[in-house]
Amino acid sequence: MMVEVLSIGNELLMGKTVNTNASWIADRVTRLGGLIRRITVIGDDLDEIASALKEAALRGAKLIITTGGLGPTHDDKTMEGIARALNVPLELNEEALRMLEAKVRVRAPQVRKMAYLPRGAKPLQNPVGAAPGALVKLGEASIVALPGVPSEMKAMFELHVEPLIKEGAEEAFYEAEATLIGIYEADLAPIMEEVLKRDPTLYIKSHPKLEGGVSIVKLHVACRSLNLEEGKRKVEEALKHILGIAKAKGARVEES
Amino acid sequence: MMVEVLSIGNELLMGKTVNTNASWIADRVTRLGGLIRRITVIGDDLDEIASALKEAALRGAKLIITTGGLGPTHDDKTMEGIARALNVPLELNEEALRMLEAKVRVRAPQVRKMAYLPRGAKPLQNPVGAAPGALVKLGEASIVALPGVPSEMKAMFELHVEPLIKEGAEEAFYEAEATLIGIYEADLAPIMEEVLKRDPTLYIKSHPKLEGGVSIVKLHVACRSLNLEEGKRKVEEALKHILGIAKAKGARVEES
Repeated sequence: MMVEVLSIGNELLMGKTVNTNASWIADRVTRLGGLIRRITVIGDDLDEIASALKEAALRGAKLIITTGGLGPTHDDKTMEGIARALNVPLELNEEALRMLEAKVRVRAPQVRKMAYLPRGAKPLQNPVGAAPGALVKLGEASIVALPGVPSEMKAMFELHVEPLIKEGAEEAFYEAEATLIGIYEADLAPIMEEVLKRDPTLYIKSHPKLEGGVSIVKLHVACRSLNLEEGKRKVEEALKHILGIAKAKGARVEES
Repeated sequence: MMVEVLSIGNELLMGKTVNTNASWIADRVTRLGGLIRRITVIGDDLDEIASALKEAALRGAKLIITTGGLGPTHDDKTMEGIARALNVPLELNEEALRMLEAKVRVRAPQVRKMAYLPRGAKPLQNPVGAAPGALVKLGEASIVALPGVPSEMKAMFELHVEPLIKEGAEEAFYEAEATLIGIYEADLAPIMEEVLKRDPTLYIKSHPKLEGGVSIVKLHVACRSLNLEEGKRKVEEALKHILGIAKAKGARVEES
């Protein structure tokens, strides 16, 4: 199941906010067996939102998760941007209005705005904050709009997005890590290449760093497969093989 | 000066790594007067790298900063991806080889690989690590390839990218923040809208949170203008106006 994340907010483009929402979602989606293809960060701009959504759908994403832009202020434009991508009007959604009224006094137009969804959207309950989310279809893709406030986003992801991914993901994901101390990444590269040549379904990544003049490489091995047991076996065999050679080359190993 | 960031690495798409590189770059570029239009995160995939670069150039980016994928391992594919976007071969760059040889023993092909750049690229010195960066042109856009290791990326940004932005940026950026305690975002929204209607060149953003049942709104006001003094005056006047009304509505204000 191919998934894209669309993070919406000028504060992200100005570097005021680190995009921890995207990494949290990416971690969850990966563990649930989904595949994140791309994460796109754009500003609070209607044309940018609409075109980024259409681009993701054209790339074949089955699920597009947006975060941010659902609040009451002038620059919260996500619902309007989604409506523009779908070429439908934004209209008051009665179910969203009831969700909102259960949370806050809906008097000011700025508050009422949060109940305006693209025509045909399914409103999604926000168990933590006020603004409801929305689920819509754009061609083959489902778009889920979540708030940018992390606690609200996480609660809504678990409630509304996890079931969609569990239902859609056909693959299982298994991963393992190890830390190798006293060996250079360039010395590991040929071993990693050899293992990957034998089994291209594996994912192997090394993260080098230097601490007090000692080279440390964090190694991450993962596998996406139809069968979790098979993936686990492949990952463990590959890791054992690499660590064996690394030890023979003098590295100290910490498995995690 | 319109700038895009392209963050390359499967670990970002799997949520193993939080993209602090992108927010650090976004903050620096903004303060230097550049405008970040989009941040795109993709995996270590040649076609993805090539197409993401071409898309950014088509959107009118004058500078595209890539991070990641310059190391010695099988999945470090950024230089090859850039070559594909430019439709030129990857070839051994003698200057890059000299930079590399000054740092490490270049014997294994995996190490030598780091001196292969797209034909016509200008190698960029890495004062911290081994892998050189590169500067190339793609139509109107300059592409600067930086490593993913934060300490290397930051040193190379300061050395090679800052001068490009200072030269290209025609605008100055000024910003100020305040924290409003005991007021709801929805109550601030109409004031913010009114200020923005009077001066659409301002940027105003509110970040709400709830702490111990008390609503707290962090307010961020910024302005991009040809003249720093003018931007400063606009930001200070707008902030003073909003804070005055917020105080009259019972909010406590902490300026920062």
